[in-house]
Amino acid sequence: MQLLTRGTGLYTDHYELTMAQGYFKFQRHEKPAIFDYFFRKNPFKGGFTLFAGLDSFLDMLESFHFENKDINYLKNVGFADDFLDYLKNFRFSGSIYSFSEGDLVFPKAPVVRVEAPILEAQIIETLLLNILNFETLIATRAARMKIAAGGRNLIDFGMRRAQGLGAIHATRAAVIGGFTATSNVLSADLFGLTSTGTMAHSWVQSYEDEYQAFSEFAAAFPENCILLIDTYNTLNSGVPNSIKVAREMEQRGHKLMGVRLDSGDLAYLSKKTRKQLDDAGFNYVKIIVSNQMDEHIMASLIQQGASIDGFGVGTRLVTGKPDAALDGVYKLASFDGTPRLKLSENSDKLTLPGRKSVIRYFNKENKAYADVVALEGEMPQEMIYPGQTEIKNQKISCMKAEPKLEKVWENGRRLFKKRNVKEIQEYGTEKLLHLPNEHKRFENPHVYKVGISPELLKLRNELIEKHM
Amino acid sequence: MQLLTRGTGLYTDHYELTMAQGYFKFQRHEKPAIFDYFFRKNPFKGGFTLFAGLDSFLDMLESFHFENKDINYLKNVGFADDFLDYLKNFRFSGSIYSFSEGDLVFPKAPVVRVEAPILEAQIIETLLLNILNFETLIATRAARMKIAAGGRNLIDFGMRRAQGLGAIHATRAAVIGGFTATSNVLSADLFGLTSTGTMAHSWVQSYEDEYQAFSEFAAAFPENCILLIDTYNTLNSGVPNSIKVAREMEQRGHKLMGVRLDSGDLAYLSKKTRKQLDDAGFNYVKIIVSNQMDEHIMASLIQQGASIDGFGVGTRLVTGKPDAALDGVYKLASFDGTPRLKLSENSDKLTLPGRKSVIRYFNKENKAYADVVALEGEMPQEMIYPGQTEIKNQKISCMKAEPKLEKVWENGRRLFKKRNVKEIQEYGTEKLLHLPNEHKRFENPHVYKVGISPELLKLRNELIEKHM
Repeated sequence: MQLLTRGTGLYTDHYELTMAQGYFKFQRHEKPAIFDYFFRKNPFKGGFTLFAGLDSFLDMLESFHFENKDINYLKNVGFADDFLDYLKNFRFSGSIYSFSEGDLVFPKAPVVRVEAPILEAQIIETLLLNILNFETLIATRAARMKIAAGGRNLIDFGMRRAQGLGAIHATRAAVIGGFTATSNVLSADLFGLTSTGTMAHSWVQSYEDEYQAFSEFAAAFPENCILLIDTYNTLNSGVPNSIKVAREMEQRGHKLMGVRLDSGDLAYLSKKTRKQLDDAGFNYVKIIVSNQMDEHIMASLIQQGASIDGFGVGTRLVTGKPDAALDGVYKLASFDGTPRLKLSENSDKLTLPGRKSVIRYFNKENKAYADVVALEGEMPQEMIYPGQTEIKNQKISCMKAEPKLEKVWENGRRLFKKRNVKEIQEYGTEKLLHLPNEHKRFENPHVYKVGISPELLKLRNELIEKHM
Repeated sequence: MQLLTRGTGLYTDHYELTMAQGYFKFQRHEKPAIFDYFFRKNPFKGGFTLFAGLDSFLDMLESFHFENKDINYLKNVGFADDFLDYLKNFRFSGSIYSFSEGDLVFPKAPVVRVEAPILEAQIIETLLLNILNFETLIATRAARMKIAAGGRNLIDFGMRRAQGLGAIHATRAAVIGGFTATSNVLSADLFGLTSTGTMAHSWVQSYEDEYQAFSEFAAAFPENCILLIDTYNTLNSGVPNSIKVAREMEQRGHKLMGVRLDSGDLAYLSKKTRKQLDDAGFNYVKIIVSNQMDEHIMASLIQQGASIDGFGVGTRLVTGKPDAALDGVYKLASFDGTPRLKLSENSDKLTLPGRKSVIRYFNKENKAYADVVALEGEMPQEMIYPGQTEIKNQKISCMKAEPKLEKVWENGRRLFKKRNVKEIQEYGTEKLLHLPNEHKRFENPHVYKVGISPELLKLRNELIEKHM
C-alpha cells in the first residue's frame, strides 16, 4: 500500500545521503553493517512500551527508490553524478530482524536489527525511525488508556488534533494499542476498520432548538443515535431533550444508543445524567464522555464513581502529549564484520556492540521476568549482568526463554503473513497479560529488568578499554 | 500539489459525514452556514501565535472529492445511496476568508472564516483543523526558537522524531517560523528549499579511528564539511582530530566549515572547543550544537556564554513537545442567515455569533495594540469590550486600523498568488517586529488584547438571554 504520491527515497535526512555518497566514493558502500533500533526510556513515565509500526515501515520500504524528480533534486543540491547513477537503481537488499508488532519492548534492548551493505542500512534510517518511533509511542499510550478504562469503550477522536498527515498512522497505532473504534475515516478504510461518529455541536446549533435537533437526528439514524447533550445546558436541557427523544424512539420500535458529554465536570454530570436517564426508564442508554481525556483522567473519573460507558479521546492519544516522541535511535553495532561501539559524552548514550539477539525469560507463573541482550547464538542459562540499566546481576536459571528477534524481511520482501490491526491488537493484549501488574501501574512502575549476557559484557568491556 | 495517493474526501471524521447525510436527508444541506476557525490559548505558555498551514490546507482542499473506492467504503459502513450519489459529484463550492500565512494571530478571534452550504462547510472541518492546528503550532515554536537563538542558524533535524508523515508539514512550518535550514530532503524538494546535513556517529564508528573518519569525510566534502566530534571523547579526541583535519584542509586550499556537539554539557564543551580551535588558528570553524534543544535551553546556553554558531533542533521543534497540539476549533457562527451561539458547560467554550471580521489596531509607535472581533462591515472607532478574555474596556480612538480576514478561496480556486515558504518567513519576521516585546518574552508574557465590538457584544448578549 503506497500512501504518498512520491516514492520514499527522499523520505530521509540529508546526512544519510551525504554519508552514502562518502561510503560510495571510497568504495566502502558494500561492506556489511549491522544497525540496532532501540529506545532509551519508556514513554509517559511508564513501565512498558508496546511496539507498533513495523508493517507501515515495511510498506514504505517497498516504495523506497529514487525517481527521476528525486534524482533531479539531488543533482541540484550538489550530489555527484556517479553516486546518483548508483541511486537510480537503488533497492534495499538487506535483511531485517524484528520483534513482532504488538509485543512488549523495553529500553536499551534492540527492537529491530538491520543487516545490509552499509550504504543501504544507512539511508533507510530516517524512514525506520520516523515510523517506528511514532506508532510505538501512540500504541503505548493507547495501551495505557486501555488499562485505565477497565473494559469501557475507547474511541479515537483525534484526527483534528493529530500532527497533520501523522493522523493516518496515529489511528492505526491507537487500534493496535487497544482502541475499539475511530472517527478517522481514511485510516479506517486503509487499515480495514469501521469508522464511527454521530454529531457535533454544529448539528445542534443549526436548529432553532435542541429538541428538534435531537429529534431529526434520531429520525435519520435510528440504529446508532448518540446525542451530544452539552450545547446549551446538560442537565436542564440536554438530558431532558434526549429523554423525550428516547421515548419517541421507543414508540417507533428503536432505542437511543447513547448520549455524549463534552464539557463541564464529567464525574458530576455523568452521575446526574445516569440518574435522570435511569429514573426515566432508559438504563440502556450509554454515556460517552470526551474532552481532554488521558489515562490519568480516566482513572480518576472511574475512581470517583462516574457513570461512563465509553471514552472519546483526542489530543493526548494521537499526539502522545506531553511526551510527543519516543526517543528511539538507530546505532551502528558492527561494520565489515567487526563490532562497533559509541561512547559519547553521556554514559547513558553508550551503545551495545556486535550482532545481538534479545531473549525474554519467564518466571514460574509464566510472567515476563527479564529481557537479555545476548550475542547472536548465545543463550544465557545462569546469570545476566547490568547493561545500561540500573539492575543488579540476576539469576535466570531454569526460566523459560523466548528468543525475540525474527527475520521479517529478506530479498526485498516480507517473510511473514500480514496481520490486520485487530489481530495485532489481540496479540498485544495477550502479551500484556503476561507482564506483571507492577510494570503496568502509572505511578512509579517497577522497572522491568533488561540485562546483558556474559559474552556481550565481555565484548563491550574490551571495546571500551580499546577506546579509552 | 497532491501528496497522498488518495483524494482527501475521506480525510475526515466520521461524524462530519453522518451529519452531512442528516442535512441532506432533511434537505437542509444547501442552507448557507458560516464557521469560524479559532483557538483558545497561545501554545507554549507564550504571548503570540504565528499562523501557518493555509496553503497546505488549500492544496488538500483541491483534492477533496470522493473516488469510487471512497464511495465503496462509505457504502459498506452504511451510508445511504442517495447521499452517496450526491457525494460522487462533491466539490467544495464555498468561500474562505483568512489571515495571511505568517501573520500573528491571538486566542478567541477568528483566524479563518468559511462560508458555504452547511454540508460543504461541515465536511471540510477535520481537514482544516488537522492542517492548520499543526502547522501553526510548529511555526509558533520555530518563531520562539528564532527569538531565543538571536540570529544564530537554526537547522531542523526533526524528521526521525516527527509524528510519522507529519514530518512533511512540520518542516514547512519550521521554515515559515524562521528556521534557516532543514535535514528533511522530501520537504525541501516539495517546498522549494535546500536540505543540508553531513555526518552521523555511524560514519565515525565505521572507521577504525576517528581521525581517519574525519579525514576521508573532508576529502569527500571539502566545501561543506562539518565534523561530529563527540563519538568517543569530545575534548581529548574529537577536537584534536578535527584540528588536524582542518590543518590538512588548509594545505589543500579548503576550510573546515564546522564541528558539531551532540552530547554532554554543551555550555562547557562549546567554550572549550572554541578555545582549542581558536588557539590552533581556526577561528573560522563554526560550532553547531544539537541534543534536546528548545527555546529555553538555547536562551540558557547563550546566557552562559556558550560558543555556538548554530542549533540543530529535533523533537521539540517538529512535535511541539510538550504542548503537541494547538487547541484550534471550528464553530458554527451562523446558519441560514441567523447568528448561532454555543454556551457549553465551560464558560471558556462560549462562542461568538454572526458573520465577523477581525481588525488589528496599532499604536503611535506602529506596534500592534489590540485585535477586535467585530461584525462584518462594522469598524469600531472608540471602545472595545471584553470578549472571552479578561481585559477591561479599552479605548482605541485615533488608532490605525487594519482589517485582517481576506477572501482567499472562491469557486474552487485560490484568490492569491502562492508565496514560497521563505517569502512567508520574511512576512512573519516583519509582523513580529511590530509586536511589542512584552508579548514575545517566554516567562509570563503580557496578554495581548483581544476585544469585541459594540455591535457584537449586543448580539451575543441577546442570544445568551434567549438560550438562558
